Amino acid sequence: MEKILVAGEWRDADATSSFRAINPNTGETLDREYPVSGRSDVEAALAAGNDASRELKRTPRQAIARFLEGYAQRIDDRSREISAAASEETALPVSPRLADVELPRTTNQLRQAAEAVRNRSWTQPTIDTASNIRSMFVALEGPVVVFGPNNFPLAFNGISGGDFAAAIGAGNSVIAKAHPSHPHTSQLLAEAAFEAVEEAGLPAATVQMLYRTSHEDGELLVSHPLTGATGYTGSRSAALKLKQAADNAGKPIYLEMSAINPIFMLPGSLAERGEALAEELIGSVLLGTGQFCTSPGLVVVQAGDDAEAFIDAARGQVETAGVGALLSPSGVEGLGRSVETLIGAGAQLVVGGETAEGPGCRFQNTLLRTSAEALLAAPEDLQTEAFGNSTLIVVAADADEMVAVAGAVEGSLTGAIYSHTGGQDDALYARIEAPLRQRVGRLLNDKMPTGVAVVPSMNHGGPYPATGHPGFTAVGIPASLQRFAMLACYDGVRERRLPDELREQTSIRGCWRQIDGEWTLS
Amino acid sequence: MEKILVAGEWRDADATSSFRAINPNTGETLDREYPVSGRSDVEAALAAGNDASRELKRTPRQAIARFLEGYAQRIDDRSREISAAASEETALPVSPRLADVELPRTTNQLRQAAEAVRNRSWTQPTIDTASNIRSMFVALEGPVVVFGPNNFPLAFNGISGGDFAAAIGAGNSVIAKAHPSHPHTSQLLAEAAFEAVEEAGLPAATVQMLYRTSHEDGELLVSHPLTGATGYTGSRSAALKLKQAADNAGKPIYLEMSAINPIFMLPGSLAERGEALAEELIGSVLLGTGQFCTSPGLVVVQAGDDAEAFIDAARGQVETAGVGALLSPSGVEGLGRSVETLIGAGAQLVVGGETAEGPGCRFQNTLLRTSAEALLAAPEDLQTEAFGNSTLIVVAADADEMVAVAGAVEGSLTGAIYSHTGGQDDALYARIEAPLRQRVGRLLNDKMPTGVAVVPSMNHGGPYPATGHPGFTAVGIPASLQRFAMLACYDGVRERRLPDELREQTSIRGCWRQIDGEWTLS
Repeated sequence: MEKILVAGEWRDADATSSFRAINPNTGETLDREYPVSGRSDVEAALAAGNDASRELKRTPRQAIARFLEGYAQRIDDRSREISAAASEETALPVSPRLADVELPRTTNQLRQAAEAVRNRSWTQPTIDTASNIRSMFVALEGPVVVFGPNNFPLAFNGISGGDFAAAIGAGNSVIAKAHPSHPHTSQLLAEAAFEAVEEAGLPAATVQMLYRTSHEDGELLVSHPLTGATGYTGSRSAALKLKQAADNAGKPIYLEMSAINPIFMLPGSLAERGEALAEELIGSVLLGTGQFCTSPGLVVVQAGDDAEAFIDAARGQVETAGVGALLSPSGVEGLGRSVETLIGAGAQLVVGGETAEGPGCRFQNTLLRTSAEALLAAPEDLQTEAFGNSTLIVVAADADEMVAVAGAVEGSLTGAIYSHTGGQDDALYARIEAPLRQRVGRLLNDKMPTGVAVVPSMNHGGPYPATGHPGFTAVGIPASLQRFAMLACYDGVRERRLPDELREQTSIRGCWRQIDGEWTLS
Repeated sequence: MEKILVAGEWRDADATSSFRAINPNTGETLDREYPVSGRSDVEAALAAGNDASRELKRTPRQAIARFLEGYAQRIDDRSREISAAASEETALPVSPRLADVELPRTTNQLRQAAEAVRNRSWTQPTIDTASNIRSMFVALEGPVVVFGPNNFPLAFNGISGGDFAAAIGAGNSVIAKAHPSHPHTSQLLAEAAFEAVEEAGLPAATVQMLYRTSHEDGELLVSHPLTGATGYTGSRSAALKLKQAADNAGKPIYLEMSAINPIFMLPGSLAERGEALAEELIGSVLLGTGQFCTSPGLVVVQAGDDAEAFIDAARGQVETAGVGALLSPSGVEGLGRSVETLIGAGAQLVVGGETAEGPGCRFQNTLLRTSAEALLAAPEDLQTEAFGNSTLIVVAADADEMVAVAGAVEGSLTGAIYSHTGGQDDALYARIEAPLRQRVGRLLNDKMPTGVAVVPSMNHGGPYPATGHPGFTAVGIPASLQRFAMLACYDGVRERRLPDELREQTSIRGCWRQIDGEWTLS
C-alpha cells in the first residue's frame, strides 16, 4: 500500500480500504495499491495544516516564492516520468498534450504565482492616509483544501494545479485531495512538492495529500472548524454535497462544477464559412476526447440550408475522427447516461451514441440534434452535461427562437457567438448577447472556448451552476489568489506594526497599491 | 393601510396581516398601519425588478449617477422630516445623531456611489492586449434584495443605506425589505427615492419596497430564480435561515449578522491611562444605547491593581451615564436574555442587568465581568452578543491567558488592541495580534471600533459568523459594489461590441484600468 503525505512525512494511512487506478486505454487495472483514508488521516492533516498555516504567516514571502519556483523546476526536470504516469492513468497523450501543453502550463502557473508572491499586487493594498485606514488581502487562518478533477492530471491537480498555486501563492497551506483516477501522477507530483518544501525551508506540512476519503470525510474536510476554504473542480453532484456542508459551516468553497458552454452560430457566419466552422467545432468538441470543462456541448443554429449543410459537415468530421479513450469506466457510463437523457428529452442521434468497440474506455464520437422548441420545453434535461466526445446541435426555427434559447441557457463557464465577418449579423448579435452575457463567465467571438489562457483578464468561472459564485475565477493570476484570502483592515495601527505592504515606505518593489484613490507602483 | 412600492407604483399590498411601529421612547404604538405582504407581492416585485434590471443595462450610466445624486439631494432637503420620523420610531436623537451624523453619512454614501458609477473604476477593467482578453465586473442579471437592520434607520436602511447604494451603483435594481421597526422612515425615504427615479428617467421598478413578509416569503426573496443577490444586516438567527435558503439556490448572499468586537487593553495601557480608557470604553459601549454592529462587547484585561481600578472607573462611568432607550420591546427582551445567558455561563454582574424603570424600551446600563478561565471553558456562551448598552470585561490571570482568549474569539467585525504609547507592550501585542488578526475584519490600535469611516480602505466585514464570507466589505466604496456584480470576461470580442470600459479608446474619464499589468488612469 502506498503512503500518504501528512504532517510533513510520507506515512501509512489509517486506511479503511484501498483502490487501484485503471489504464483507460487498455482497461487494465494498474499495480499500485492506494489507501482510502479514514477520519484520523483527515483530522491529522487538518491539525498539521493549521499549524503550518500559522507558521507560514511568519515565513518570509521569498521562501514561498522559492518553493513555487523550485517545485516548478522539479516538475520540469521530471517531465518525462510525470507525463508518462499521467498518460498511463488518463489515456491523454504524452504528446501533444501532457508533456507539450499541460505540463508547461502547470509550471507556468506555479511561476506566475511565485511572481505574485514577490510583487504582492494580488493583496490590493488600499491606503487612505487622511484617516490612516489601510487594508489588504491576507492568507486565511486555516489550510485550504483542494479537490482536483479527473480531466487535467497536472494543470488542475489538487497538488500542482491552478487552485494549488493560488492557495499557496496567497500564503496558505494546502491539503490536496488527489483524484483517485490518477493517484500515481499525484504521488510523483507530491514527492516533488514535498522536496521543494524542504528545500525552501517552508513548514513541513505546507503541502499534504490524501488519495481518497469517504464522502462523509470529504464533507468534514470542507466544513471542519480548522478549514480555511476549499477549491473544488469536478462533478456537479459531488460538488453540491460539499457545498452544502461548507455553507452550513460558514466556510468559503469555490466550485467549478459543470458547464455546457453554448455556441451560437449566427446565420451570416454559416453562410460565409459553415464548413470551416463545422471543422473548428468538432475539433474543439473532440479535444481531449471532449473532457474539457469548457467543451462546447450545445450549438445553436438557425434552420435552413446552411444549417443542414453545417450539420452534415459536422457529422462528416465526427465520423472520420478517431475515437479517443475516456478517462475511466465511470466516464463511459456517465456519458452513456447523459446521451440517454438527452435522447429521452427529445434529441435525435445524428451519429454515435453507443459504447465503442475496442479495448479500454471508449464511447463513439457522438453528435445529436434537437429543435429550439424542444429545448425550450425541456431546458433542464436538454442541458444535461454530456462530459466527453459528444455535442448537441439545436436548430432554431428563426432568430427569435435563437434569442429565446440564449435566455434559457444555464449558468456556464463560457458562451461563444460566431457571426459574419462583416456587420450583417450585428442586430441579432446584440439580441443574443444581452441574455447570454449574464449567463456565462467568458464570452467569445468567433473562437472556441477550449483554450483557457493564464492571463490576468481570464475568467474561468461563471454564474451558478457553473460555479458557486459569479465573482471569482479559478484561472488567471492574481485574481485567482483572492479566493483564498480574507480582507484585513488596519485602522490607526502604528506604522511599525503594519505589514510591509501597507507601510508608507514599503520595502516591496513592483507592488501596485491604491493610495488615496490612485494606483501607485512601489 | 399604507401602500407598498412595487412595479413602479405605490399600491395596495396583498396583505396577509398588518402591523404598527412603536415609539421606543414612550412605548406607545404609532398610528400608521403597514401591511405584511403576501407571496404575490414578493413575486410581483421580483418580476418587475427583473425587467428593470434588464432595462438598466441599456440605461446610460449618467442617468444612474443622476438618480443617486438627486435622491441624496431630496433626502438632504427633507432632513428635518426624515430625521423626526426616524427619531420617533427608533428613539435615536435627531441631534447629535440622526440629522447631524447619520443622514449626512447616508447622502455621502449615495454621492460616493454616484461618483463610482461615473468613473467606473469599481468595475476593475483588466485588459491583456496580446491575447485580446478583457474582463470587468458588471451588474447581476436579476434584482438585488436588501434587508435593512433596526439600528441605522437611514445609513443602513434597505432603501437608502450602504447596501442600497452599492447595489444601485453596480447597476442593479433593488427590492428593499424595510425593517418593520421604522416603516414610516422607510416610507419617506422610498417616496424620495421613487421621485428621484422618475426624475432621472430610470426604469420605474429600479427601486421597490416591501415593509414586511412572512419568514417563508423572505426565504423566497433570497432564493428565487430571478433574484440576483441579497444584502442583509440584522440578527444572526434570521440571517442563518436566509443564508441556507440562498445557498441552496446558489444565490450570493452577503450577511452582516453579529459581532462582539473584542478589545484587548494591554497592561502598559492600563498603567499609563486606565481611567481615561474606561471613559473612552464606556462612551463607545453606550453610544446609540450600544446598538452598533461594532459596539465593544468583550474587553480583556490582565489581572492586577490596574485592572481593578479600570473596572471601578468603568463602573463609575456606567452608573453616572443616562439610560438611553433601546430600539424596541424585543430589543429589551433580547438584551435581558443575553445578559442572563452570560450570567448563567459564569459572568458576574458589576452593575445593571435589569429592565430599567421609566417609560418606553429601557434596560439598565450594564457591566459584567468574568475570568479568562471561565471564558475559555465556555467560549460560545460567554461570547453571546448582548446587543445594547452592556459589555463584559474578561480578567485574564496573565499574559498567556490574554493570548489564549485572542485565540478563542469568534469571527468579528472588529478587534482593538490598546497598548502603552511607548514600546513596553510590544511583545505581548505581537502575540495577541497574530490570532486576533485572523478573526476580525478590522484591527484597531488605541481606538474604539464604533466609528466606521466611508473610505475605500474600510472593511466592514469579517470572518464567519460576523459575516458569511471574509473577503467582502459592506462599507467602503468602490469595494462594496463588487459584491453585487459578476465577473464578465470578453475573449476575442470585436472592439465595437465591447463595453466602453474595455475599449482601447474608452470615452470614460477617471477610470483606473489594469492594462497589461499596469494600472492606468483613463
